[in-house]
Amino acid sequence: MPKFKKIAVVGIGLIGASLAAALKKYDPNIKITAVDRCLESIKKAEKLEIIDQGFTELKDNLSEAELIFIAVPVAAIPSVIRKIKDGSKGKQLLVDAGSTKKEIMLQAKEILAGTKKIFVGGHPMAGSHKSGLDWHQVDLFKDAPFILTPWIEESKSLLPTDEALKNSNVEEEQLQQLKELIENLKAKVHIISAEEHDRCTAYLSHLPHLLSSALVNLSSKRDLDSSFLELSGSGYRDMTRIAGSSPELWQDIIISNRKNLSELVTEYIAELKELQLNLENNEENKIYNFLASAAEIKNKSREK
Amino acid sequence: MPKFKKIAVVGIGLIGASLAAALKKYDPNIKITAVDRCLESIKKAEKLEIIDQGFTELKDNLSEAELIFIAVPVAAIPSVIRKIKDGSKGKQLLVDAGSTKKEIMLQAKEILAGTKKIFVGGHPMAGSHKSGLDWHQVDLFKDAPFILTPWIEESKSLLPTDEALKNSNVEEEQLQQLKELIENLKAKVHIISAEEHDRCTAYLSHLPHLLSSALVNLSSKRDLDSSFLELSGSGYRDMTRIAGSSPELWQDIIISNRKNLSELVTEYIAELKELQLNLENNEENKIYNFLASAAEIKNKSREK
Repeated sequence: MPKFKKIAVVGIGLIGASLAAALKKYDPNIKITAVDRCLESIKKAEKLEIIDQGFTELKDNLSEAELIFIAVPVAAIPSVIRKIKDGSKGKQLLVDAGSTKKEIMLQAKEILAGTKKIFVGGHPMAGSHKSGLDWHQVDLFKDAPFILTPWIEESKSLLPTDEALKNSNVEEEQLQQLKELIENLKAKVHIISAEEHDRCTAYLSHLPHLLSSALVNLSSKRDLDSSFLELSGSGYRDMTRIAGSSPELWQDIIISNRKNLSELVTEYIAELKELQLNLENNEENKIYNFLASAAEIKNKSREK
Repeated sequence: MPKFKKIAVVGIGLIGASLAAALKKYDPNIKITAVDRCLESIKKAEKLEIIDQGFTELKDNLSEAELIFIAVPVAAIPSVIRKIKDGSKGKQLLVDAGSTKKEIMLQAKEILAGTKKIFVGGHPMAGSHKSGLDWHQVDLFKDAPFILTPWIEESKSLLPTDEALKNSNVEEEQLQQLKELIENLKAKVHIISAEEHDRCTAYLSHLPHLLSSALVNLSSKRDLDSSFLELSGSGYRDMTRIAGSSPELWQDIIISNRKNLSELVTEYIAELKELQLNLENNEENKIYNFLASAAEIKNKSREK
């Protein structure tokens, strides 16, 4: 099966630089071209030898790449896709790394209509609350889920059927090659629909982020002096860690998945309202059931 | 300054056994007597040489101890205090390890009125989601906050004034000895009022626990298959870790601090309602401000 030999990365931040480094580690012969608005990042990446050549503008600089990873913030992805389309007429596979998928899939479909370029949604579920090239890790994707969302018909199941995949926008062989490449970076590839992805990540990633931020914000509304946080233990630290992440990146993510999130926050509020009533009325058994059901679910998933 | 030479521990679970082990490590000459309803635990603790002698009933077995650590679940503390009172008439210092303080302080005051026994609330803010003797660690308290709440007049400041401490139920010298003993176990001692303790821990420990449990419970209300959780990253893992703790222990803790918690959950719901409206109305700036304020507070506290 022919492999990708010329790969481009747009955006040399935490994800883009880690991807480039992982690709180079897997196969030093892969030629990696990069684009980033920041000249300093490009120079650093060249010096680190995780890219072969870099540019600060996209133009037609990526026309030779067979595969282009788009690792820019969610809100900037459509304009990057448009520039790639304007840069060359050739057949190219485009994969993004955005944290939400449905909206971007619809935009990519519209922008690329009538061209030879194929867009497959990508979401490496790895990261850090630190962003930027300086924090890149060659093993960032190791053992982490890497989701691919080709364009498929909406399906109720988490995994798209073979039938649905045959009708997707990407050739089966091409999708297989992409999957293998990412598996060579030691990531665990999951192929699901964009809708299912956004429902899953709203619950598994975006809602936790909002809950963590709301918990931290509450501290500023209470009259707490500085020695107060010294009393916190590992529970509070764990629960508030992700609140320290870049608000610019997360604003994009939250907004692009806001419909799923709005529903989920409403459901979560309903959970808390019931709990609040149980606290007010000292419903010991109901409070026990609430805690016991969570512990059971959590410990069952831990055993796996 | 005279030191405690005879110390008792009631309850040889994670906290009690770790305390006994840490005390023996600090000074092997301290004589440690223990009481636990479970004979197997007593035998194990004796075999591990973290206690000198153990009993399955309290009776008058602890009458020689100068200091008694009560490391049983919150709901069982009053009956232990009563048994200690019935066991001997001598002067003794009692310290518990419960996660809430105000209610227990009031009960201890009533039970011990007219005796020579002094109760000081204690709360080692260390632990694990695993409970029981088998999980004990000699270094469990190292670098962790260990809060002491002597009986003092209600104060608005986090730290009680020297004046308030002079009027407390415990002699200054005795409190100082207790503080030094615990500092010798490498814990960081904080002396605050019981009210302030309960307000702090409601926010720093109990609310996070409820939020984590509510997040896990939400997964059972959604139609999620088993492969779903494979897509979770470190954010979800961190946010749900504490939900796996013992529901028995936590039911006690939550219920004994339910008034503070009921207020806090109400405040938290108000935060989420505002957020939900902002999601529904696509208020990009307000969503940004929500995330940015949390990130700023979190990163400021991290720098310390």
